[in-house]
Amino acid sequence: VFGTDGPVLGIDPGVSRCGYGAVDVDGGALRPLACGVIRTEAGEPLPARLATLERELTVLVEEMEPVAVAVERVLFQANVRTAMSVGQASGLALAVAAHAGVPVAHYSPNEVKLAITGYGAAGKRQVQAMVASVLGLSGAPRPADAADALALAVCHAWGGAYHEAVAASLAKEKAR
Amino acid sequence: VFGTDGPVLGIDPGVSRCGYGAVDVDGGALRPLACGVIRTEAGEPLPARLATLERELTVLVEEMEPVAVAVERVLFQANVRTAMSVGQASGLALAVAAHAGVPVAHYSPNEVKLAITGYGAAGKRQVQAMVASVLGLSGAPRPADAADALALAVCHAWGGAYHEAVAASLAKEKAR
Repeated sequence: VFGTDGPVLGIDPGVSRCGYGAVDVDGGALRPLACGVIRTEAGEPLPARLATLERELTVLVEEMEPVAVAVERVLFQANVRTAMSVGQASGLALAVAAHAGVPVAHYSPNEVKLAITGYGAAGKRQVQAMVASVLGLSGAPRPADAADALALAVCHAWGGAYHEAVAASLAKEKAR
Repeated sequence: VFGTDGPVLGIDPGVSRCGYGAVDVDGGALRPLACGVIRTEAGEPLPARLATLERELTVLVEEMEPVAVAVERVLFQANVRTAMSVGQASGLALAVAAHAGVPVAHYSPNEVKLAITGYGAAGKRQVQAMVASVLGLSGAPRPADAADALALAVCHAWGGAYHEAVAASLAKEKAR
């Protein structure tokens, strides 16, 4: 396992729904710590929603004391309006991590898929099934934003070395 | 003049360069208070840059004690990468204002141009000349990001009523 042992916090940024998921890394072992979604009210003014999101993220980082934060890197959103909104949420997440002195890593959705399933074009279900299996969960984490954030945390915890091992094992299975 | 008297802080959000400009509104009179640019180092990691930007914006709001913050609304950036980056900076600006309990107003670049020159497709120079004239400055504020932020503050201070007066006066000039 790559990096320092301790909690890794994954964040899937969004203003309406911001997913988070934390895993504890202890040597080669991964343990689920928490996952969920920070929601803000669509009826509230945007500044108030962003302030709420930042407060919640700050509390989360204070409680989890992560050794690293993994944030989804989304460069090619479907449209500019979505990109602005994701940018607003991710900007807060990055600033909160930096204020707390926690290093931040970025992973694109494809990097997460590749790291977890060994296949960059894997489906969401495959990724979630693998995350559940790795963390010893009985089913895919819910809701989807929380599952995505948990996948980010697992992706970071595994780093490069594990990805190669997984890819090799998948290749073996395929070859059977 | 529309809204409460007191300082109005304009913010032109950006991660590399974030313009700010403040005017004091006292009845019908506008007085320039400050303008400048918050810069963050391109060589620094993004989370650290965003944390710096948020700290500087917080200090600015604490020092200015604005009655309102006017932030540029940019919905149609040239590209998604720019939108993400502007989103990150604007998210911080909105959250800082909300944390301080200061109401936020949004204006698109065209709304600013329209409010200040009476003409939504006015050039930057026209806008800056009008801002300088209104604030009794000897020349256009520098640098450009600071000037844009100052224009946002003037736009907010003027509100709707002034815009109509300006448009009427421009129409008169044109008719001469």
